[in-house]
Amino acid sequence: MSAIENRLADLGITLPEPPRPVASYLPAVQSGNLLMVSGQIPFQDGELLANGAVPSKVSIDLATAAARQCAINGLAVAKSALGGELERIRRVVRLGVFVQCDPGFDAQPAVANGASDFMVEVFGDAGRHARAAVGVNALPLDSAVEVEFVFEVE
Amino acid sequence: MSAIENRLADLGITLPEPPRPVASYLPAVQSGNLLMVSGQIPFQDGELLANGAVPSKVSIDLATAAARQCAINGLAVAKSALGGELERIRRVVRLGVFVQCDPGFDAQPAVANGASDFMVEVFGDAGRHARAAVGVNALPLDSAVEVEFVFEVE
Amino acid sequence: MSAIENRLADLGITLPEPPRPVASYLPAVQSGNLLMVSGQIPFQDGELLANGAVPSKVSIDLATAAARQCAINGLAVAKSALGGELERIRRVVRLGVFVQCDPGFDAQPAVANGASDFMVEVFGDAGRHARAAVGVNALPLDSAVEVEFVFEVE
Repeated sequence: MSAIENRLADLGITLPEPPRPVASYLPAVQSGNLLMVSGQIPFQDGELLANGAVPSKVSIDLATAAARQCAINGLAVAKSALGGELERIRRVVRLGVFVQCDPGFDAQPAVANGASDFMVEVFGDAGRHARAAVGVNALPLDSAVEVEFVFEVE
Repeated sequence: MSAIENRLADLGITLPEPPRPVASYLPAVQSGNLLMVSGQIPFQDGELLANGAVPSKVSIDLATAAARQCAINGLAVAKSALGGELERIRRVVRLGVFVQCDPGFDAQPAVANGASDFMVEVFGDAGRHARAAVGVNALPLDSAVEVEFVFEVE
Repeated sequence: MSAIENRLADLGITLPEPPRPVASYLPAVQSGNLLMVSGQIPFQDGELLANGAVPSKVSIDLATAAARQCAINGLAVAKSALGGELERIRRVVRLGVFVQCDPGFDAQPAVANGASDFMVEVFGDAGRHARAAVGVNALPLDSAVEVEFVFEVE
């Protein structure tokens, strides 16, 4: 097992089967050394972890857990795109975090930390990344959170 | 004519004149092998194909057609940036799709497929891309859809 | 002083201390020749220049000034990430501009020009960039504007 696989095992995390392409887009595309992973929503065992707007329908804590699940799913997609070899990931470059929320909600960074902290737990300093976190009024399947990823890979 | 130009002709599509820069930004910028195309709105013969929020003001079908028009315009911009040589496009890497919608609308992926499917119609497997599709409460000129693009080029 | 530092001095702009990392993400990450700068909000002397939605709470003029401040802060972050050497910036590649606004607001491009024009004032033609500007219903700390950046660097 690679160091990263060991780290995931230490964290008690089993990466899920990555989502299959359901349209004309792909879960991930590599160009040069950049691996772009499509926007992930917090599926866990086939169901979304959180639906609706933060905070009226979804608490900040639940949304943060959902952002972490998005990151788990994004890593599963990256692993699949890299032929199962997570050690080909050199670093996390960028996260784009969209939080479905009520107007005036201003704690998107706290929610986004669910995804950001996961990357650092798994990759250490190589998990630290640039990030944009914003609020939106609606997301696919009424998900509370969507996260997209750019990894640097070899 | 290149294979891609032939394919466009088969599809009955004539690429429009790309929009001229109207501010300090450019329609597209190349860095290394990546061509970043600015967010496109669905202009067709000088008018926007769809204004307002989905679904209260704009149907899903019309929004999907508008997303396709955004993709046509994005390809026109790319062609211009590449000196008219569409065959310099190796693949589509990423689409960012923003859908102006009512709170709770959850079918952004269906709308985004208007742009995604177009890329696959034109480029085949090389048209498949990573994607983030989200809802927003407002877009430039009250457009129903905005799409930005990353192409890998040579 | 480099040409860019001279230009900033001519403009009467002193770059602020860049924000310190307050979470698991970084102000900026370089991968290859791309420097990705995290979403910036318009802090000026420790306070946000504009809070709330455009135009009901924040005028277009103030939001445009806030977008400019985001760009000043983004350049400060880039300078720090480049060891203080602004001349390592070859060009501005992309800006992602998010404007907190009321539903139906359609002048995001005017607001975004605050950031875009600044880059051209500083870098000339090398400051021209691809751009996506969209409206959103909420932003971190209730900021009226958030801007993220991609620079090409050496």
